[in-house]
Amino acid sequence: MSRIVIVGAGPVGSLLGLLLKARGDDVVVYERRGDPRAQGYVGGRSINLALSDRGMLGLQQAGVVDDVEKVAVAMPGRQVHGVDGSSSFLPYGLNGEHIRSVSRGGLNIKLLDLLDGAGVPVHFEHPCVDVDLAAGRVRCGAVEAKGDVVIGADGAFSAVRAAFLKTDRFDYSQSFLPHGYKELAIPAGPGGSFLLERHALHIWPRSSFMLIALPNQDGSFTCTLFFAHDGDDASFAARSTPTAARSFFARAFPDALALLPDFDDQWARNPVSSLATIRCQPWHRGKTLLIGDAAHAIVPFFGQGLNAGFEDCRVLVEILADVDGDWARALPLFEQARKENADAIATLALENFIEMRDKVGRPDFLVRKKIEAALARAAPDLVTPSYTLVTFRPLTPYAAALRQIRAQDALLDRLSADVDVVAPVLRDPADAALQALLRRKATAHFS
Amino acid sequence: MSRIVIVGAGPVGSLLGLLLKARGDDVVVYERRGDPRAQGYVGGRSINLALSDRGMLGLQQAGVVDDVEKVAVAMPGRQVHGVDGSSSFLPYGLNGEHIRSVSRGGLNIKLLDLLDGAGVPVHFEHPCVDVDLAAGRVRCGAVEAKGDVVIGADGAFSAVRAAFLKTDRFDYSQSFLPHGYKELAIPAGPGGSFLLERHALHIWPRSSFMLIALPNQDGSFTCTLFFAHDGDDASFAARSTPTAARSFFARAFPDALALLPDFDDQWARNPVSSLATIRCQPWHRGKTLLIGDAAHAIVPFFGQGLNAGFEDCRVLVEILADVDGDWARALPLFEQARKENADAIATLALENFIEMRDKVGRPDFLVRKKIEAALARAAPDLVTPSYTLVTFRPLTPYAAALRQIRAQDALLDRLSADVDVVAPVLRDPADAALQALLRRKATAHFS
Repeated sequence: MSRIVIVGAGPVGSLLGLLLKARGDDVVVYERRGDPRAQGYVGGRSINLALSDRGMLGLQQAGVVDDVEKVAVAMPGRQVHGVDGSSSFLPYGLNGEHIRSVSRGGLNIKLLDLLDGAGVPVHFEHPCVDVDLAAGRVRCGAVEAKGDVVIGADGAFSAVRAAFLKTDRFDYSQSFLPHGYKELAIPAGPGGSFLLERHALHIWPRSSFMLIALPNQDGSFTCTLFFAHDGDDASFAARSTPTAARSFFARAFPDALALLPDFDDQWARNPVSSLATIRCQPWHRGKTLLIGDAAHAIVPFFGQGLNAGFEDCRVLVEILADVDGDWARALPLFEQARKENADAIATLALENFIEMRDKVGRPDFLVRKKIEAALARAAPDLVTPSYTLVTFRPLTPYAAALRQIRAQDALLDRLSADVDVVAPVLRDPADAALQALLRRKATAHFS
Repeated sequence: MSRIVIVGAGPVGSLLGLLLKARGDDVVVYERRGDPRAQGYVGGRSINLALSDRGMLGLQQAGVVDDVEKVAVAMPGRQVHGVDGSSSFLPYGLNGEHIRSVSRGGLNIKLLDLLDGAGVPVHFEHPCVDVDLAAGRVRCGAVEAKGDVVIGADGAFSAVRAAFLKTDRFDYSQSFLPHGYKELAIPAGPGGSFLLERHALHIWPRSSFMLIALPNQDGSFTCTLFFAHDGDDASFAARSTPTAARSFFARAFPDALALLPDFDDQWARNPVSSLATIRCQPWHRGKTLLIGDAAHAIVPFFGQGLNAGFEDCRVLVEILADVDGDWARALPLFEQARKENADAIATLALENFIEMRDKVGRPDFLVRKKIEAALARAAPDLVTPSYTLVTFRPLTPYAAALRQIRAQDALLDRLSADVDVVAPVLRDPADAALQALLRRKATAHFS
């Protein structure tokens, strides 16, 4: 049994506390914010999560899958909205697989309740102000805590990581997108009805910017506008007043604007937030470890940030089992297992912004997706659609998914320009001759 | 006339203070360390500098070129030492151009004396503890200073930059090499004689590590060992004791070891330092600007760190002249002018480590250098040797030098594998038929 101090009682810190307690460790958690069950949830990030199978695998170990499924809204695909009001549905998987829209606050509270039930003390309003990495000693508020291991699960702006930054040979980078985001809420319709398709992640792709909307169980949708910070027209700087923003929405998102009755108030009230990718190395020093966003914050465009954090928890616990709870061995093994995967999902998340805001609105992308699907049907042992690899193959490491995606992209580039492929795929992707041709081409490509 | 607060009285802060005072600005300087004239120089970095023409151009504006030339030791090339004790000289330029070995402390003191003479107050032992970037207000020790502009010239571990890191949308990266360094001194011989060739930068290239030595005016040399931090054999970790280090030197640098009589003492006494590249953006926020290493710290392998900082000073003063001293316009123009050049020299410096520690010891590199020289002679309007571009063309921006080097490297790759070129170059690089052939090939490549 080890004494473990966790800094941060967000979803990752809470799940980790549960899993370590279940292992038999003596766990204590310190959290900067107040208790969301007493005060209401004050998140640092978006209020909706897109939970996928990787995250569920971590939650499964904590036994909360059923609770989460009960409050989740299934999203089996994207509903893409054109400027003309038309829309079309693009399924995420080939077999109806779905991701889940879940309230971040609700999930966090559920995990905190479980921590209480497991007898793990959580001290709220105890901000981490100092860490002795080598000694495993941390000062949170007025309390000094000492652990066999201290784990920083305190998010993208981690106070524990700040102590790493003061040490020699700590590689670190934070890189911001030129785009920021602002949230807007579409209320439920009469009787809690949904004013947009309930079972979809909605996207209004507009090339250099986009609006998205995720369903909530009460019939409302949470919209997020991803928009350049600066610029003369399509930017937060140019649209700082509700009037300027409203005229822009009337042009770019007329159908969404019609569903936002209190647009002006929301625009004025809701803040603009920034989007950063944070990479660092090493993740452990002495008796201290970073995990989740504290070790690898990513942009939200693959919906994988929290999923990656939950996956961290699952992998750490598996490694601890392999080394019989020897934390000194587990820390480097954990970083070795996770670092390349964290880098891979960071890259994929940045690339998916371009897919979401631009490509999904273009005909050539739709053709490419059809070829990818036909190929996956013709050679399922060789080709898996990229979205499926990241989202619905929770045991495929992100880095392996990225390598596979790169190899498949090279093949798709070629097939998308191949007249013997494009026309037949559009006619009938299940055609036997086409399937045989695709199978031959895939075999040649991957041999 | 503007009120300018400079944080940092190292070489860059001092030169900038002189140049701004000469413009007519009201300048005050705060420095964390004590006065090196009273206390002896305590540098944070290597005690020797390789000053090249870019740095001299900045110093020229301050009128100190003659003073610097007096204390500099000219180094017109590299003396490369083999394991067998053999050595050969590789000139840096085609026309005997040289770089200068200069004492960092001596140069700094000279600039501080000039600041005194110019009536610029320098407050030592006033560490910067807080900066209000927007207001141009800085707290140094117990003093609060307010400027129209605050300039952070406080080096790679800049306290002013730390205030930028707390603001939103500040891109930042620090990246460490797996190699560190340790300095060792070769004493002068009898009567102040030089025990190695005086007019050369000495290199003992050993592929994955290297030793270098720069001459000092008193006949001594300052050696620097660049060595992996970790590893089983060739590393600081494996050679932490003088005995373990001595046996390694006996194998890798027997001739140098013979010139280091107090090797064991020096090895035990001198620290191992780390090597980092630091990039950030933006360099200015509100009324505050970063300059020199505070904005762009690089590894030392092209000897350009301080040269780039002095070039910053020159360019900033030129821009101020262009905009009639309008600092609000000058700050973004400065960053725009310098950022890509800082990134370019950071890249070149990292690449030059491989050239110094590995390539200069290999025959194929020497052939390539001969082809480059022959090419530059055949087509001087099209080809300039890479070292010359970086070091002896002070008005060619680093980014332009890097682009030209990339284009030339593609040509050199091809010519190095061309039997019609290699053998004739080794026979007689001035041969008329060869020169005509090289001219044709260069023309075709660059057209």
